Amino acid sequence: MPSIDPTSVQRVTILGAGTIGSGWAAHFLACGKEVTVTDPAPDSARRVAEFIKAAWPALVRLGTAKVDTPPEYRFVEDPADAVRDAQFVQESAPENLEIKRVLYDRVESALPAETIFSTSTSGILISDLQEGRIHPGRFVVGHPFNPPYLVPLVEVVGGKHTPSDLVDWTVDFYRANQKYPIKLNKEVPGHLANRLQMALWREAVHAAIEGIASMEDIDAAVTEALGIRWAVVGPHLTVHLAGGPGGMHHQLEHLGPGIQSWFDDLGAPNLTEKVKQHLVTGMNKAIEGRNYDAIVEQRDRELVDLLRERSQVKGQRE
Amino acid sequence: MPSIDPTSVQRVTILGAGTIGSGWAAHFLACGKEVTVTDPAPDSARRVAEFIKAAWPALVRLGTAKVDTPPEYRFVEDPADAVRDAQFVQESAPENLEIKRVLYDRVESALPAETIFSTSTSGILISDLQEGRIHPGRFVVGHPFNPPYLVPLVEVVGGKHTPSDLVDWTVDFYRANQKYPIKLNKEVPGHLANRLQMALWREAVHAAIEGIASMEDIDAAVTEALGIRWAVVGPHLTVHLAGGPGGMHHQLEHLGPGIQSWFDDLGAPNLTEKVKQHLVTGMNKAIEGRNYDAIVEQRDRELVDLLRERSQVKGQRE
Repeated sequence: MPSIDPTSVQRVTILGAGTIGSGWAAHFLACGKEVTVTDPAPDSARRVAEFIKAAWPALVRLGTAKVDTPPEYRFVEDPADAVRDAQFVQESAPENLEIKRVLYDRVESALPAETIFSTSTSGILISDLQEGRIHPGRFVVGHPFNPPYLVPLVEVVGGKHTPSDLVDWTVDFYRANQKYPIKLNKEVPGHLANRLQMALWREAVHAAIEGIASMEDIDAAVTEALGIRWAVVGPHLTVHLAGGPGGMHHQLEHLGPGIQSWFDDLGAPNLTEKVKQHLVTGMNKAIEGRNYDAIVEQRDRELVDLLRERSQVKGQRE
Repeated sequence: MPSIDPTSVQRVTILGAGTIGSGWAAHFLACGKEVTVTDPAPDSARRVAEFIKAAWPALVRLGTAKVDTPPEYRFVEDPADAVRDAQFVQESAPENLEIKRVLYDRVESALPAETIFSTSTSGILISDLQEGRIHPGRFVVGHPFNPPYLVPLVEVVGGKHTPSDLVDWTVDFYRANQKYPIKLNKEVPGHLANRLQMALWREAVHAAIEGIASMEDIDAAVTEALGIRWAVVGPHLTVHLAGGPGGMHHQLEHLGPGIQSWFDDLGAPNLTEKVKQHLVTGMNKAIEGRNYDAIVEQRDRELVDLLRERSQVKGQRE
């Protein structure tokens, strides 16, 4: 357990600087931290610098960054050097248990005894990563959403060796650094948000292969109704509010059997070759030759606009 | 098939003016239509007027309404009178096949021969409503999301007696009236968006009863990551973009088996008494005594703010 208060951490090390790691680097720089970055790829120092420069205007618009240009940071070759005086480590190495283990072997003895080591893994169980470590309890998952400098959520979960108060410390650390952390009580494949995402997409796949609507219109059913509402109220609160003043209790008592039959009628598609071909063809039709980079750029601009509007609105009302 | 162009419709009749019907009335008034409203409840004329007055500021903020106070409209007692010179009818009677059939019996002979009759039903098949009608082909579903004057989506679907070009006409009519219509190619229980909504909520229920996180944190996983992103890009496009420049094809080829195992690992909860109790208790804890009306009011304000920001952003870029 770190003796330092989670709000007082100044020195953050980014281990692995692909898209996720570079996004974390940009975010922690914007939060005013002293950031050290390391990545073994030959060209990574240049790529990280370019990434941070490209991300910066969005961080300024969002209000995370208070200065117009990115501050200095350290890029070092040796991961052991990178973590030597770190007060918090965010690891975003490739999603491979062996690669991560080799990296952990290299850095663990250089890591200060109290430093929390958080992995961005989306799919590896933290208990598997803790196996064989000197201080397994310091290892937690801090799973961001892409891009980590825009999307607020971080899922925090400990493994079987992580004390609960250490998970709480990590939650407090992310909260103090302008993220929205949630604490997961147990390790499950996909954590939580990706499971929810897969549940929606599975039904969207079912609708596409059943020919209920075009893939463009299936996406519009989300962007033009569900998504914009889910940006404001989550799925449980949505059901509660739909129940009127009687809320969740009223909904379940009066519509319970109906809801159950809806649950049971949902699709469970298999991704056969034919289904995959259908999805690829339908997607190509939906994007009608629009350029990949142009769609990503538009998505990120619109996402920043909505996040900015939402945080201003919430700020005014608090 | 109406001879009138869908963009030239002026006279719209609202049959049934509960929450949904009153919302439609406010929306069509804001669009500058001549609106006639009818509802059999004793106090409905007053309630509709109050509803429209309460909804108006949001319609002004959204830019749908161009005037500061609601224009005049007609409220009539007799539904046959209400539809007599209608160029479009939006029916939002209670969700009950018999109640709707009795209403259709009363109005059908008064309805001009060419007028499209659209029902807001969320759960009744349009083919069942077409049974026994004089001109069954004119009946379509135009299913809105609550509140219909805020959420853009309308799901349009015809029954076995509806000609396809009549569905297209209805889609064009809603589009000309500041809604985002999508065309469904077949009738299925729950149409499309509510099925997608149920798919997400089912996994959210599974996460709650498995104790993965608190219900408040499960909701936050949506509002702080998935929802705000789904307000910008739908579920299919999200997967396509996650695949990098290789898009959907790349994702399915490289992650297909993994995705399938994720699909198969999703929960399929049963709403037993114990599960229902768990959800009610968890929900009460999540809202911590917050007042129902206050939550609804906050949701609608934030929804208007986000919709307004999004439409301004899109408007600037088009």
